[in-house]
Amino acid sequence: MSKVAILGFGTVGSGVYEVLRTNAKEISRKTGKEFDIKYVLDIRDFDDHPEKNLFTKNFDDIVNDAEVDIVAEVIGGATIAYEFTKRALAAGKSVVTSNKELVATHGFELLELAKKNGVKYLFEASVGGGIPVIRPMARCLAGNEITEISGILNGTTNYILTQMQNGMDFDVALKSAQEKGYAEANPAADVEGTDACRKIAILSSLAYGCEVDPDKISVEGITSLSLSDTVLAEKMGYGIKLIGHSKKVGDKIEIWVSPMLVSKNHLIAGVNGVFNAISVKGNMVDETLFYGRGAGKEPTASAVVADVIDIAISEGTESICVWDKRKDNYVIDINETKTAYFVKVKSSEKDALRAQFGNITCAEEGDEVAFITGEMTFGEIKAKTEKLGITTKVIRVLNS
Amino acid sequence: MSKVAILGFGTVGSGVYEVLRTNAKEISRKTGKEFDIKYVLDIRDFDDHPEKNLFTKNFDDIVNDAEVDIVAEVIGGATIAYEFTKRALAAGKSVVTSNKELVATHGFELLELAKKNGVKYLFEASVGGGIPVIRPMARCLAGNEITEISGILNGTTNYILTQMQNGMDFDVALKSAQEKGYAEANPAADVEGTDACRKIAILSSLAYGCEVDPDKISVEGITSLSLSDTVLAEKMGYGIKLIGHSKKVGDKIEIWVSPMLVSKNHLIAGVNGVFNAISVKGNMVDETLFYGRGAGKEPTASAVVADVIDIAISEGTESICVWDKRKDNYVIDINETKTAYFVKVKSSEKDALRAQFGNITCAEEGDEVAFITGEMTFGEIKAKTEKLGITTKVIRVLNS
Repeated sequence: MSKVAILGFGTVGSGVYEVLRTNAKEISRKTGKEFDIKYVLDIRDFDDHPEKNLFTKNFDDIVNDAEVDIVAEVIGGATIAYEFTKRALAAGKSVVTSNKELVATHGFELLELAKKNGVKYLFEASVGGGIPVIRPMARCLAGNEITEISGILNGTTNYILTQMQNGMDFDVALKSAQEKGYAEANPAADVEGTDACRKIAILSSLAYGCEVDPDKISVEGITSLSLSDTVLAEKMGYGIKLIGHSKKVGDKIEIWVSPMLVSKNHLIAGVNGVFNAISVKGNMVDETLFYGRGAGKEPTASAVVADVIDIAISEGTESICVWDKRKDNYVIDINETKTAYFVKVKSSEKDALRAQFGNITCAEEGDEVAFITGEMTFGEIKAKTEKLGITTKVIRVLNS
Repeated sequence: MSKVAILGFGTVGSGVYEVLRTNAKEISRKTGKEFDIKYVLDIRDFDDHPEKNLFTKNFDDIVNDAEVDIVAEVIGGATIAYEFTKRALAAGKSVVTSNKELVATHGFELLELAKKNGVKYLFEASVGGGIPVIRPMARCLAGNEITEISGILNGTTNYILTQMQNGMDFDVALKSAQEKGYAEANPAADVEGTDACRKIAILSSLAYGCEVDPDKISVEGITSLSLSDTVLAEKMGYGIKLIGHSKKVGDKIEIWVSPMLVSKNHLIAGVNGVFNAISVKGNMVDETLFYGRGAGKEPTASAVVADVIDIAISEGTESICVWDKRKDNYVIDINETKTAYFVKVKSSEKDALRAQFGNITCAEEGDEVAFITGEMTFGEIKAKTEKLGITTKVIRVLNS
């Protein structure tokens, strides 16, 4: 019998409680293991909860209780969650988490601390919500050299982009996302790409074996996208998605978060609403893709519980969800990364565009025109569009 | 250092050899484990092979060598592979396999035998080729009660159906598949659905915990599909895919392999060519989907090697990829299973159709018309179409 402590009784924490209680019998049937919740830590009062005796406001109760094997940290953020995680690991308790900020910022240190104390630090729920992707990538693709990752890693922005594809303006789509509870009152972390940045940092750290500093990742959100971008992309056979992308190039990586045009022939273009999908390429398996609900109470809790179960069924083994410490000059300068680009200008500037890019064929919408370039570096496309001396919208195109 | 024996040096076997050799350094970096190939068993001569000293024609060499920890059985079929697997497990060697026929037919017995001998029998490569699906379903969705599985499980038929969707007749598409090496000279196991049947049997045995007898599964292949079916489906917003489907209904399951109409809004409709995709629903995670190359040398070998690695990194633990023995009356009579249906008749019979089904709206193509019914049992739709007394094509519709 494993004894579990849940840190934080918000959306995900209460989900973890529900999954462990609702599916207790099924989990035991499948795994031969039993799990009991011994504590729930939260600063708020839950006096009306049917199991109010589980609640504590004092982390010492948990860290000093030798019976607690597994701590599920679902507080979020990198302050108090960071302290609690370090103390739990140091006390010889395995920690599982959905906290992408903490894993992206302090992953290496926490993984080392876990190893030193003979326990595990697992984080399946930190990327892709309920989608199994961390463990499948680490274990099921362990025979591969992972070469590339591209994914829709944020459900809020994908919901907004889906609404825009259906003809809604950005502001209206954002408001709709807020009304449905998909976006926070302050949607910055989602729409400016910070959340996706942490997730591609985690996936890439794991895939290529070296921790990626999130601050080194070029991040562009979706706030500057307009309806005409999506309409023009559509006319050329593409959808626009916010993509977290990374690729191994020699002993370095290219990595960014930005809106990208995705060909309608690629499955990712068909991923709508709050769903996420992550494409992972390996040198033997070619492309694989993992799809599902990237957020939400039960899906995220499902992934946290998967890690709780994993601790119990893999007792005595070492985790392979680990990576080395950060190194200098690991991330390629964004100006040196190469893709094709969607370039949009006012129709009146079509001749200037042709003077710079040759005899191109443009899609037209209202008073704007756009076309897709060949592959070139980001530095080159910036230089070319600056030479135009006019307002130009440039969006990367996903190579599929 | 784990010592591996590869049984069978065909497409998959030579792929396993290549993955272990090509990615040796990367595998060791990721897992901290090393793997050496000690034997390759094949009845043929490989005197020109650079490592010809590894080859043997005598299984005794392998089973009697105490140094061999892991046997990769990639012979296929349920005769000699069955014997070798039993002997290897009995000798205390873990066995990993891509052999869906053997797992579907004798899975329970072999899993029990492995357990009795303190070793493992793993079969990630038996379903979905390189796609991680067996282990993700068993481990990453372990917190869920799996409720439903629907997937494109056979790449050959999906290639043929994709070509038909592009306007090619079945016979021409089959010939094209054979020319490209996707289909065997005798394509029966693929086009008649036998291969997909074994795979949905394995997935369902694992998901719901009780072995499904493949002989109890209603199987319909793609040989009776015509181009006009795909055109009419397309007009109604659907693609036609060969789907392996199962669903938990109380303590029984519904299960079949048949062509199904899949809404263009569902990702599965966008899975083209030889790719596979498997949708798995859980009571907490909702829908997840796993996509990738469902066959081929390197992808399948990638999955076999994942199991080889798993044996090493999870030493001392018990596998949770297991299920109970078959039980009577577990599979619901196909006549009692319920879906919507695509019903096609000659245009001249439209009035008869309306007399039976009410004032329906039909899609038309050439001299044929079709519509989609509401949900009813297979027994009911058969009774209704028999009453029509005319030639009727009936195809299930996937509920998404």
